[in-house]
Amino acid sequence: MPTSLVILAAGQGTRMKSDQPKVLHQVAGAPLLHHAMKAGASLEPERTVVVAGHGAEAVEASARDYDPDVIVVRQEEQLGTAHAVDQARDALADVEGDVIVLYGDTPFIRPDTLDAMVTARQEHSVVVLGFEAKDPGRYGRLVMQGTSLERIVEFKDATDAERTITFCNSGVICADAREMFDLITAVGKQNASEEYYLTDIVGLARARELSVTAVACREAETLGVNSRSDLAAAEAAFQARTRRDALEDGITMQAPETVYFSFDTIIGRDTLIEPNVVFGPGVSVETGAHIRAFSHLEGCHVSRGAIVGPYARLRPGTELSEDVRIGNFVEVKNAIIDEGAKVNHLTYIGDADIGSKTNIGAGTITCNYDGVFKHRTEIGANAFIGSDTMLVAPVKVGDEAMTATGSVVTEDVPAGALALARTKQVNKPEFARRFMEKLRAAKRNLTGGTG
Amino acid sequence: MPTSLVILAAGQGTRMKSDQPKVLHQVAGAPLLHHAMKAGASLEPERTVVVAGHGAEAVEASARDYDPDVIVVRQEEQLGTAHAVDQARDALADVEGDVIVLYGDTPFIRPDTLDAMVTARQEHSVVVLGFEAKDPGRYGRLVMQGTSLERIVEFKDATDAERTITFCNSGVICADAREMFDLITAVGKQNASEEYYLTDIVGLARARELSVTAVACREAETLGVNSRSDLAAAEAAFQARTRRDALEDGITMQAPETVYFSFDTIIGRDTLIEPNVVFGPGVSVETGAHIRAFSHLEGCHVSRGAIVGPYARLRPGTELSEDVRIGNFVEVKNAIIDEGAKVNHLTYIGDADIGSKTNIGAGTITCNYDGVFKHRTEIGANAFIGSDTMLVAPVKVGDEAMTATGSVVTEDVPAGALALARTKQVNKPEFARRFMEKLRAAKRNLTGGTG
Amino acid sequence: MPTSLVILAAGQGTRMKSDQPKVLHQVAGAPLLHHAMKAGASLEPERTVVVAGHGAEAVEASARDYDPDVIVVRQEEQLGTAHAVDQARDALADVEGDVIVLYGDTPFIRPDTLDAMVTARQEHSVVVLGFEAKDPGRYGRLVMQGTSLERIVEFKDATDAERTITFCNSGVICADAREMFDLITAVGKQNASEEYYLTDIVGLARARELSVTAVACREAETLGVNSRSDLAAAEAAFQARTRRDALEDGITMQAPETVYFSFDTIIGRDTLIEPNVVFGPGVSVETGAHIRAFSHLEGCHVSRGAIVGPYARLRPGTELSEDVRIGNFVEVKNAIIDEGAKVNHLTYIGDADIGSKTNIGAGTITCNYDGVFKHRTEIGANAFIGSDTMLVAPVKVGDEAMTATGSVVTEDVPAGALALARTKQVNKPEFARRFMEKLRAAKRNLTGGTG
Repeated sequence: MPTSLVILAAGQGTRMKSDQPKVLHQVAGAPLLHHAMKAGASLEPERTVVVAGHGAEAVEASARDYDPDVIVVRQEEQLGTAHAVDQARDALADVEGDVIVLYGDTPFIRPDTLDAMVTARQEHSVVVLGFEAKDPGRYGRLVMQGTSLERIVEFKDATDAERTITFCNSGVICADAREMFDLITAVGKQNASEEYYLTDIVGLARARELSVTAVACREAETLGVNSRSDLAAAEAAFQARTRRDALEDGITMQAPETVYFSFDTIIGRDTLIEPNVVFGPGVSVETGAHIRAFSHLEGCHVSRGAIVGPYARLRPGTELSEDVRIGNFVEVKNAIIDEGAKVNHLTYIGDADIGSKTNIGAGTITCNYDGVFKHRTEIGANAFIGSDTMLVAPVKVGDEAMTATGSVVTEDVPAGALALARTKQVNKPEFARRFMEKLRAAKRNLTGGTG
Repeated sequence: MPTSLVILAAGQGTRMKSDQPKVLHQVAGAPLLHHAMKAGASLEPERTVVVAGHGAEAVEASARDYDPDVIVVRQEEQLGTAHAVDQARDALADVEGDVIVLYGDTPFIRPDTLDAMVTARQEHSVVVLGFEAKDPGRYGRLVMQGTSLERIVEFKDATDAERTITFCNSGVICADAREMFDLITAVGKQNASEEYYLTDIVGLARARELSVTAVACREAETLGVNSRSDLAAAEAAFQARTRRDALEDGITMQAPETVYFSFDTIIGRDTLIEPNVVFGPGVSVETGAHIRAFSHLEGCHVSRGAIVGPYARLRPGTELSEDVRIGNFVEVKNAIIDEGAKVNHLTYIGDADIGSKTNIGAGTITCNYDGVFKHRTEIGANAFIGSDTMLVAPVKVGDEAMTATGSVVTEDVPAGALALARTKQVNKPEFARRFMEKLRAAKRNLTGGTG
Repeated sequence: MPTSLVILAAGQGTRMKSDQPKVLHQVAGAPLLHHAMKAGASLEPERTVVVAGHGAEAVEASARDYDPDVIVVRQEEQLGTAHAVDQARDALADVEGDVIVLYGDTPFIRPDTLDAMVTARQEHSVVVLGFEAKDPGRYGRLVMQGTSLERIVEFKDATDAERTITFCNSGVICADAREMFDLITAVGKQNASEEYYLTDIVGLARARELSVTAVACREAETLGVNSRSDLAAAEAAFQARTRRDALEDGITMQAPETVYFSFDTIIGRDTLIEPNVVFGPGVSVETGAHIRAFSHLEGCHVSRGAIVGPYARLRPGTELSEDVRIGNFVEVKNAIIDEGAKVNHLTYIGDADIGSKTNIGAGTITCNYDGVFKHRTEIGANAFIGSDTMLVAPVKVGDEAMTATGSVVTEDVPAGALALARTKQVNKPEFARRFMEKLRAAKRNLTGGTG
């Protein structure tokens, strides 16, 4: 039976104190919304509807960014969760099967949890996701009778006995799409906030003698984000879990607590990661690479045996082949660097191809930008680029070619040739000594002292 | 009623194992002494007296640095806290009103705590600052009877019953200046250490049937620094509180525990701060800026929309206008960078003005130092500085001017002009190949191998 | 009485999920094996035997690296700890005195613990090392009767009463060498794993009415490494202890938890270390130096008064004399830098000598590598190296000499002279404006828009 998703993403998130819609704040390099969409995507949903409200335009753009086929509907006024889901009614009018309601600010629901809900639907009309709360506080409580969910009771309405219940409501809910929207039609707003609560469909379903159950997930999955502190806590939870997994997968980290992963980071076994490394989105590192301290990687691939850093910055579009060496204070962007090539010091490589075993001298810069266009630099294999070479793109340097230290290379260099653009050195005897004496004298005059 | 301050700052701090006076060790980028002076300054004191002893000269200089009007007196021998306060007697001989005694090694007393003491003085002759200790250990206990402080009992003199008291003495004390010095005159040194204890004035006041009370502050405020571990703990306490406040103010930090603030850092809402950022003293960042990982800022202003880092270092005197971009391995010092200008890679900008929308190429250096003097570089708007341009200051580059890659610019460049200082490139065919062969042959000869 | 060591280092460490032998994984910049060897070396052993198995070749090389006199024997099959020790039988056939069995994956046993075992041997035939376990879990229990160790009982064989014992077996054991091997001969493999357990010699010794005892160490010393998580935990334990010691020794660290030491780091009192500093192996820093944030040091010496960083990288062979200043984005390798010299920005100094008070301009590079050989750069005292100077080694710059900004220096510069290799600047009026207009027009044509 196909499943569809409704993801609620309309809230303002007042406590975030932000001009940005809440669900666009990021954890692990991706908006909260993408985390929720990714969790739901594991069900291969028939259709995904995101309900946007505050900052709807930005939310819509971000949702489409993740999934071009997503349907985004607007909730113009925020009248409660049932009202929010109701905005998806038309978009799901023609689909068969179940609908699961997820929350755009709840990033950590796991695929197997959603699978468990779908499975439970085979036996029950409505399935609610609950969790055993360590400290249930003011959460709504799930009142169970065997496998049957009798009702959801809000904390403020709960009896003392009910308050001792630790099985709490996550808000995630699954039902047949038609049934869900039928039940929503019946939801009223006879409550203190005068809002339409999605939770109320449980009572309505029970009144119709429909079978309702709850499945349990770990409390950590239900972590929702309402403030920047929550956001930092979500990030910390993500990082802690990812670091633990990485250690278990056979990655060495001297100080795992200083290594930051993104939602999609892939690291091979026996990779050594030193302290203070940041992996932005889109990074894959093969087995046995070595990422040294203070490195920053985004959108790049690092092959086995490569050594990166310390203080290396790999930007999107960087591909390092096996045994490549990127050293300190080096920035690489949109460049393919072949096997065994070395870029060891103080260099900017952008929009370039570098052949295997080529050595790039310290201070080399690919001058890829003319103020309007970007151009490409192509360097062959076994080339030797002298220190402080400026490669004014578009330009090609052939295999086994060299450039002399300090040269500005504006024309192609044939294979095996040396490119030279240098002025002969002249030494002016005693000039420096006299010059400094003059400067110091000037200073003495200014300060009236002995400088 | 005016209030004066006496700040005790004479101690050696033996356990610091340092050649530096204890109160000059820093927390959050400022000496402990400044933190204490800042707390006291909230009362707008009539007069502030710092009692210096060990390293008095350095302590005096630092005190004056914070407040040129401070009076610094010397305690030649360290004979106890009452003796220390007594050194301020002459300096306060002509002032009316209260005196509060603070400690130069206790950085976290809050302004509202001092306000509460001053308020309590309206009803009582002597006001002592106490705190509920989580683990009272060997602190002196405050024996209260209702609102009346009966006496302060040292731990070693306390009965078992008294030792169960958890309300402890911070040492901070407030009284009418004349009364305080009268009481101090009566303090003896009949105790194990043969020191004059300021605490004793409580008993003396009670003996004179003066009313004595204690007001309570949070224990964290009374944290004193006696060792480098204490100093690190004080720093950690400061950082934890500041990070929490920043999150509440609507600042996003992916890893708040890796961001270091100074005592005076100002950050606007919706600013994004990536992991591993250090804010030295004197930094203000406007709303919606983005400080990327591994950045280091001191004495600078960052306007809204600016993006800084990763690996950017902003030094004192840097002002970034809106939407400026400072990239990786870039150092900026004493420079004003106008709206939308970009300094993206491997650059040193010092003593410079850069106009709006100007692009500074990778590897550019403002050569501001001739060995004796520093000079200024002025670059107009919409200019394009080619990679590896050396700007030998003093020098001006006009609006919409360009410099060719690799040029050493020693003369002013008119608006719209191109400055060029470059040698034509020559390619020497096969030179590189032959040169490398020769080198490799030489190596083979040396090693007797195949190199 | 002389002592010999047997260090067991044959295990594969399956849970490490690594191609590298377990004992070669590093803590604090040294392989686990070296930590164990270092602990044992404190006894000045007559002979040290390492038992290698998995990855024996690499283990042997690493062991020899630490101690060229070590004897490495092979355990071809892993048949248990007694079998492992038995491989050392021949290597120790001719030595008198005791043998202590240590473990290559247990890095933190302290010298005084081993001393205590040797001392206890004066009264007992066999000495076992035990520890009071906070959570004894499945450790083997030491059943004591007064000072006599009655037996070691494995958890799974223990009675409920025995399981309440918290004094546990570390596996480290000491006996007379001849006795040890005699006992080992008698060890059988009548157990679930069908392995020869070294532990069994305790029971065998008791059966022969030999006196057996146990000495206790702190549990932290017995921390063994079986997974990458264990490795990270061992690293964290090392760092925590070392940071605490450093604070006690009078070193200031604003954020000690972000400073990483190696096993052999030496730091003088009153040194100030800012956040995010990594000390690789072989670093010594004198009193009163200042290591700024984001610095990375390996194999170098920093003298008093020197200031390093932020973002400075000191590589092996770097020696900084007093008051040297190494600034941001500077890499120094195999170089001696004399008193008061400054290398402040964006520079690579490799294979060089720099004289006292010399100033190295921003963007300077010692071009030390010609593709095959490395060459040395020598700079005198009070020299002034202009920004972006390329020093093509081998080359010498004399005392008080200067190089002009942007010069490629290929020949020696005499003392007091100025080296100049520069093309005269030409300004081409209006060129820049026209060039940019052309580019923008081209873009408009391409995009059909207004660019």
